[in-house]
Amino acid sequence: MGIKSGEHYIARIDEANPNVWLAGEKLAVKPSQHPAFRGLMRTQAALYDMQGSDEHRDKLTYWDPELDQPVGLSYLQPKTKRDLARRRGMMQTWAERHHGFLGRSPDYMNTALMAFSVSAPLLAKEYPEYADNVKRYYKYCRENDITLSHAFIQPPSARMTSFLQSLEPPAAAHVVERTTDGIIVSGAFYMTTQGVTAEEIIVFPTPLPHLSATDNPYAFVFAVPNNLEGMTFVCRENWANADSAYDYPLSSAMDEMDTLVLFDHVKIPADRVFLYGDSFMVDRWMRECRFHPHASHQILCRVVAKTEFIGGLLECIIETMGLSTYSHVTEKSAEVMAMTETLRSMLLASEATAAKDRFGSMLPNPDILYSANFLYPRLYPRLVEILQLIGAGGLIMIPGEKDFESAKGSELEKYLRSGSLDAKRKTALLRLAWEIGASSFGGRQTLYERFFFGDANRVASRAVENYSLRRKHMERVAEFLNIDSASIFQKG
Amino acid sequence: MGIKSGEHYIARIDEANPNVWLAGEKLAVKPSQHPAFRGLMRTQAALYDMQGSDEHRDKLTYWDPELDQPVGLSYLQPKTKRDLARRRGMMQTWAERHHGFLGRSPDYMNTALMAFSVSAPLLAKEYPEYADNVKRYYKYCRENDITLSHAFIQPPSARMTSFLQSLEPPAAAHVVERTTDGIIVSGAFYMTTQGVTAEEIIVFPTPLPHLSATDNPYAFVFAVPNNLEGMTFVCRENWANADSAYDYPLSSAMDEMDTLVLFDHVKIPADRVFLYGDSFMVDRWMRECRFHPHASHQILCRVVAKTEFIGGLLECIIETMGLSTYSHVTEKSAEVMAMTETLRSMLLASEATAAKDRFGSMLPNPDILYSANFLYPRLYPRLVEILQLIGAGGLIMIPGEKDFESAKGSELEKYLRSGSLDAKRKTALLRLAWEIGASSFGGRQTLYERFFFGDANRVASRAVENYSLRRKHMERVAEFLNIDSASIFQKG
Amino acid sequence: MGIKSGEHYIARIDEANPNVWLAGEKLAVKPSQHPAFRGLMRTQAALYDMQGSDEHRDKLTYWDPELDQPVGLSYLQPKTKRDLARRRGMMQTWAERHHGFLGRSPDYMNTALMAFSVSAPLLAKEYPEYADNVKRYYKYCRENDITLSHAFIQPPSARMTSFLQSLEPPAAAHVVERTTDGIIVSGAFYMTTQGVTAEEIIVFPTPLPHLSATDNPYAFVFAVPNNLEGMTFVCRENWANADSAYDYPLSSAMDEMDTLVLFDHVKIPADRVFLYGDSFMVDRWMRECRFHPHASHQILCRVVAKTEFIGGLLECIIETMGLSTYSHVTEKSAEVMAMTETLRSMLLASEATAAKDRFGSMLPNPDILYSANFLYPRLYPRLVEILQLIGAGGLIMIPGEKDFESAKGSELEKYLRSGSLDAKRKTALLRLAWEIGASSFGGRQTLYERFFFGDANRVASRAVENYSLRRKHMERVAEFLNIDSASIFQKG
Amino acid sequence: MGIKSGEHYIARIDEANPNVWLAGEKLAVKPSQHPAFRGLMRTQAALYDMQGSDEHRDKLTYWDPELDQPVGLSYLQPKTKRDLARRRGMMQTWAERHHGFLGRSPDYMNTALMAFSVSAPLLAKEYPEYADNVKRYYKYCRENDITLSHAFIQPPSARMTSFLQSLEPPAAAHVVERTTDGIIVSGAFYMTTQGVTAEEIIVFPTPLPHLSATDNPYAFVFAVPNNLEGMTFVCRENWANADSAYDYPLSSAMDEMDTLVLFDHVKIPADRVFLYGDSFMVDRWMRECRFHPHASHQILCRVVAKTEFIGGLLECIIETMGLSTYSHVTEKSAEVMAMTETLRSMLLASEATAAKDRFGSMLPNPDILYSANFLYPRLYPRLVEILQLIGAGGLIMIPGEKDFESAKGSELEKYLRSGSLDAKRKTALLRLAWEIGASSFGGRQTLYERFFFGDANRVASRAVENYSLRRKHMERVAEFLNIDSASIFQKG
Repeated sequence: MGIKSGEHYIARIDEANPNVWLAGEKLAVKPSQHPAFRGLMRTQAALYDMQGSDEHRDKLTYWDPELDQPVGLSYLQPKTKRDLARRRGMMQTWAERHHGFLGRSPDYMNTALMAFSVSAPLLAKEYPEYADNVKRYYKYCRENDITLSHAFIQPPSARMTSFLQSLEPPAAAHVVERTTDGIIVSGAFYMTTQGVTAEEIIVFPTPLPHLSATDNPYAFVFAVPNNLEGMTFVCRENWANADSAYDYPLSSAMDEMDTLVLFDHVKIPADRVFLYGDSFMVDRWMRECRFHPHASHQILCRVVAKTEFIGGLLECIIETMGLSTYSHVTEKSAEVMAMTETLRSMLLASEATAAKDRFGSMLPNPDILYSANFLYPRLYPRLVEILQLIGAGGLIMIPGEKDFESAKGSELEKYLRSGSLDAKRKTALLRLAWEIGASSFGGRQTLYERFFFGDANRVASRAVENYSLRRKHMERVAEFLNIDSASIFQKG
Repeated sequence: MGIKSGEHYIARIDEANPNVWLAGEKLAVKPSQHPAFRGLMRTQAALYDMQGSDEHRDKLTYWDPELDQPVGLSYLQPKTKRDLARRRGMMQTWAERHHGFLGRSPDYMNTALMAFSVSAPLLAKEYPEYADNVKRYYKYCRENDITLSHAFIQPPSARMTSFLQSLEPPAAAHVVERTTDGIIVSGAFYMTTQGVTAEEIIVFPTPLPHLSATDNPYAFVFAVPNNLEGMTFVCRENWANADSAYDYPLSSAMDEMDTLVLFDHVKIPADRVFLYGDSFMVDRWMRECRFHPHASHQILCRVVAKTEFIGGLLECIIETMGLSTYSHVTEKSAEVMAMTETLRSMLLASEATAAKDRFGSMLPNPDILYSANFLYPRLYPRLVEILQLIGAGGLIMIPGEKDFESAKGSELEKYLRSGSLDAKRKTALLRLAWEIGASSFGGRQTLYERFFFGDANRVASRAVENYSLRRKHMERVAEFLNIDSASIFQKG
Repeated sequence: MGIKSGEHYIARIDEANPNVWLAGEKLAVKPSQHPAFRGLMRTQAALYDMQGSDEHRDKLTYWDPELDQPVGLSYLQPKTKRDLARRRGMMQTWAERHHGFLGRSPDYMNTALMAFSVSAPLLAKEYPEYADNVKRYYKYCRENDITLSHAFIQPPSARMTSFLQSLEPPAAAHVVERTTDGIIVSGAFYMTTQGVTAEEIIVFPTPLPHLSATDNPYAFVFAVPNNLEGMTFVCRENWANADSAYDYPLSSAMDEMDTLVLFDHVKIPADRVFLYGDSFMVDRWMRECRFHPHASHQILCRVVAKTEFIGGLLECIIETMGLSTYSHVTEKSAEVMAMTETLRSMLLASEATAAKDRFGSMLPNPDILYSANFLYPRLYPRLVEILQLIGAGGLIMIPGEKDFESAKGSELEKYLRSGSLDAKRKTALLRLAWEIGASSFGGRQTLYERFFFGDANRVASRAVENYSLRRKHMERVAEFLNIDSASIFQKG
Repeated sequence: MGIKSGEHYIARIDEANPNVWLAGEKLAVKPSQHPAFRGLMRTQAALYDMQGSDEHRDKLTYWDPELDQPVGLSYLQPKTKRDLARRRGMMQTWAERHHGFLGRSPDYMNTALMAFSVSAPLLAKEYPEYADNVKRYYKYCRENDITLSHAFIQPPSARMTSFLQSLEPPAAAHVVERTTDGIIVSGAFYMTTQGVTAEEIIVFPTPLPHLSATDNPYAFVFAVPNNLEGMTFVCRENWANADSAYDYPLSSAMDEMDTLVLFDHVKIPADRVFLYGDSFMVDRWMRECRFHPHASHQILCRVVAKTEFIGGLLECIIETMGLSTYSHVTEKSAEVMAMTETLRSMLLASEATAAKDRFGSMLPNPDILYSANFLYPRLYPRLVEILQLIGAGGLIMIPGEKDFESAKGSELEKYLRSGSLDAKRKTALLRLAWEIGASSFGGRQTLYERFFFGDANRVASRAVENYSLRRKHMERVAEFLNIDSASIFQKG
């Protein structure tokens, strides 16, 4: 069928009717009718509708000759720099609709699945059936415009060595039984974002514990619909405020619910298993499939849009409050401008210096992308801090829509106005800044950006270990000092 | 009557029945019954009850010989270092009850009023009746244990020069009429914290505009009950969550509502007016009354308790999650420890180096206290950042009390536990960290600490302009270089 | 004649024999024989020799059809993105020879002069003779490969308002007399770098004071040889150490002497005057000639090379000392890598998003370049700090070449070696790190990068005021909130 | 004899005639005649002369009843808070003479030796002769006012595990032979500061490798004169500039030379050995002797003086250049003021909260002192950075004394003056700032402060592991959440 509409998206999620628990109760209504999901689903529906619109279709899709239909462009394997530019055009168009607040807009997982699929040859020699499963699944998702989420983080108890070494069965997810029909899995995954509002979920835990056995029950990769028997999504506290777009311009539309996914003897069909038992191969595939560079290209499109949006908001506040003549304000404007231009430059340069990889992909430059992954968890909190420093008390003393409509509205209008902008519109700017800078929604966004790709050490190691220019720069120093560079690298 | 009980406190607030608007509606119930005020009022009631308890009475009160009753110790003018130590003991006892989250616990304004009263001699020569009013009001509040708030920030529109220069009447608060009974005031004040949950309010705006006339209608200081005709409190959005102390350990008990106070032709009785018309004297009194050092002593007691509490929380999380062996975690622990010990040291040293001022007060050292005022707005956000960096995803994926009580509770218990601490108690630590580090309540706390005593420039200027050792340190350099220090100070 | 050789360069400087004072004495030998200039001049000679070498000629020069000779590529006006890439190739080739430590390698001023020349049309309508002078001078310099420096900063006394308002003649440089042969100038300029080791100097002070008269004696732009009668160069303290390339690998070769230039009734020939008397036009030309973007493109080439070199050195030390397994070291490596990749990306992206300007130049993107100008004064000191943190005590306890050659050399060799690298070579790495991180040479480099393009406020203002995307990002926010963006910009 | 004079000090160092190598040559003149040591020795002589002066004697000495002479107060074991205050008075008096630039002014090692001596009872049970040696040595040094340095850091090669595990003898210092007369030691120690300008040296390496044997040849503590046969001091590069106090106000007087000490079969007399062979006891003594708190008290006195001095310099520059009205300058002033007041407060509070330890010392509070140890390596580099940011180009373009005396002096005077301060005196301020902020002397000072008490991890661990209030703060949180605090500490 190719691309789906927003209506399709909502209908499929509602029909799937996954087992969702929120605030201690099983969800009794369809997701699209619940305030914790309603706003987000509308926003995602709008993204899908853009794919089919005359205005955006050419930018957001490409023609699948086999299917003879347009399909989502984020499924496209980039083979040329032009492909990368097209992918960027697609991802930016969506990102400028959700302003970067959706970390799991559908193009993220589409891109991940594309990376898994094009790297299937890695598996083909030893596990031809798994390689086929991956490629078939990719085709299925692309042709049906499936909305995906993923799960890979083990819950705290699974990571505690003491537990794993004790006699009791480890809390880490594992295969309970293998049958001819597939594998049966039990366990939990921590923090699946958009678990409820996606149709399917790809599961690829880092194998824990690292047993040497070939039938390691902790080593597997698979994909399943969200509503298989035995699957449960337990939601975190809801921070969406669906009621007023004026009061909550962001959380009424863009709060991605995070969930804990529980698997209780879930049967994974054989054709949905992408790897099993070989913990070495799971690690290798995840490390070599180039998921990280491809996904980082998407992330960078997203965070550019987010930074531009917050920068724009900051300038609106500065302009409205008449702060632009203060030198300490100008310095903060320049700092945000420099962040924005840095990230934009890295995005463009990652494409300009892309190179073909062994899977035939034109791979955007990992040196640059991993550097951006390292930077953004430091830049985003500073962006929020600057918003707090400029917004100041204006982010605390915020009336809402009902206040302006009340009998006291005219007095609020009189005292809270600012230059030419009336109080209600000025307050709209401040409420937006508050949602980003000081609300529970904003708090989650800050945490999310801090840890998007793992903790600081992991992100730093990934960058440094893969840095292709390290040796070249070292050799330049060795040559300058007339030292044989080999002697620097020889281990004593 | 002397000190009041918690019951008295609640009864008086409820009886006063001020005109309060929240979320577009006039408050229809008594404050103590409304979820936005209930938790806070209980906490404040507990503070007042401590005053009368056998355990704390001696520490929290002193004997008023005239009244022949104990009164609140924060009303005490410190005349010796021992008095300062007693005041500290009192303020720390309360702060360790509310852990520093109440910026306006009653001792703050009691201290402010004490400073105003002991500096009344400044006014006595030119305005003997005003000086008497101040002293009488202080006596009244001390003897009746009145709970106070204050208002002094002009709303944005009042600060816009363009408005003030236009023909329309300025939006700044001003005296509309002066009668034999007192003055009649109209205008608004931005961000009165605890306006609703105090009995009276002291109003002392920085005079705007600075007209040279002696009858400057923008220059005044007065105090009034919160329920005079024509007064309205418009609340910001409510971020208190009164329902579950487990889910919201802080915001269920300590969210101080901020309000915009509107005065519409409010009659201020003559004996409640402390200054009127003389903008020079308003400025001078505020600058010379030593409100800032006395209040800063109270603030420092408060922020020491807050920093210790958050530091303790951080260590609980580190211990529970088994993180103490990571060097980057140890460095953060050391950083928080250093913050704590810095602030504690400054508190003690401000007393050890206190000196008598012209009002007979033993004044805690302003050099040290203004330095602490400058530091804390930088330290607190870093404290929050460290909490985010250590808590990580644990601050996002937080279930609540109902989740643990639900059918899924046992699975949460299984997967979210950590070492010896069960999941529910471990989650209690994380929810507390979330409230401080990533919730709307926490966002307001961060903004509040950033701007407690004005923006960074103002706080820096206050510190530098009053630095008593500046010249001494400069002279040491001049002497070292054999330069006549006078030549450095002479203006060209 | 086109490009010159290193020999030519040295001969011309020595022949010019400018009036130079150093450490209280007039220079008694030729510059190339003095330890303060010798090393630097050799390095610059090597740069010129590269222009003529078979290996580099094509990369460093372009064919001047009129002259029928190759000329320096940094004189080329870029008209296409390919031209920008060629210019970058040239500038990087030189920068990778001096590793970015020469802030005034000849391509810097060549680029500046190119910008002045291509913007001469700005002057042509009102001052056709000045426009011709500029273009003729550019041709002269290009065809003769003239080495240039410049002067534009007024000394402190000139900037003191009190002096300028007094009756005594202001200390700012000014035209004393205008004759038919040209203008006669007296005054001083602060901090002309490489004043002694260049052939000519372009002078363009910001006009001070800003008199309204058309014959403003403080408003002028001109260029002169360094040895005109009445010109004196007073050097700062010398920090070059010419004696041992082992001990001082950088300062023995790359210390650019800064000078105070004194003009005492110097006669500027009429054909060397580019503007006179019209302070408005001086300001306008400097602001609109696009000197800043063109120069920033050169600067970015330079700082990329410098950052790569210091990053390479850091990795050599980490590798040699076996520190790469420490997580806090990896984080620093990642930070330096991210700096490097950020700057490289900005360089490439400034070209990819270049656009034609009204002078026919393909202008590299000022948004990006001004952002880089803002960032580098913050990044470079951090780079130095990281070098200090990693080098630690190794940067203090540094023996020199003579120590290794002495009777104690074998013991130093025994105790200071490290893994496979012997002590002398390991110490060479540390001495290089010391020169950058803790020596007087390094101290000047840090100051130089901090203030390369003015103080932080000036650089921030230039960036923010010229930011072409500011309005676009603000409009995105306005649209999101349904606010008419015009109302945000209207002034109240 | 008791306290010595400056003349004594110089005479003893010159007579000892230690084996010193500098720049590849054996020192051919007496230390006091060599430019690398001359200035420093004069400054130290001045400190000793202060002890005997009428003005300072009472503050700097105490009466030794046995000797019936005054002795240096830094030898005093503090038994009361008044003793701590006296010790502070002594240490501040010296520090305000050398302005904190002497990290090894004699009171530092005197204090260390006092800590060793009062903790000798730790050794007494198992090694009574060693305990006696320590006490006797302390008495000898106190009674003869011996100037001490120390050595404890192993050179890099000794710390390389690979070397230690190989067959060749490890490079770590060790006892080659034990005789009835004492022990014979070979090996090197990294970075003994003031090795040449002290009379004796105390050696206490961290035992490497940690062999279990009781006769561990790597485990020892001893003290010896600097001129025993077989001892050599190899100096780092000299950064002292002894010639002009105007040009080099600091390095002409305060550069403490660092040395590498080589021991080649040096015979340590038996009565100078404080421990041998028992690596467990060496570690325990060093950990428990309370050297760190006592020394940190001295350090804090020193860094307070240094911070005050640099702060004073900063204010002189701000005043002279007329910068005090810029808000970004005020903010930096406030930051430095806050640093100063923080450190001063910690010093006072460490005494106010001191407590008796098991050796009968009134121990200044380690929580506070270790926090200060953690802070200063972060504060000092920021102080230097602020100096750079305020001094700006003024720290580069610095003429010297000879320039002012030359024929060009009057022009320098004209253009470099500033307000009322003439150019030569203004330049004196800038030269001082340059020495601290951008010279080789200053670079060493920054490195020295960064690593004074070890690298950041070590200093952080020492602070956190010894924090006496950690549990108390954690219990406050546990109580607030109704969690049994024991469950937090139990290990799973």
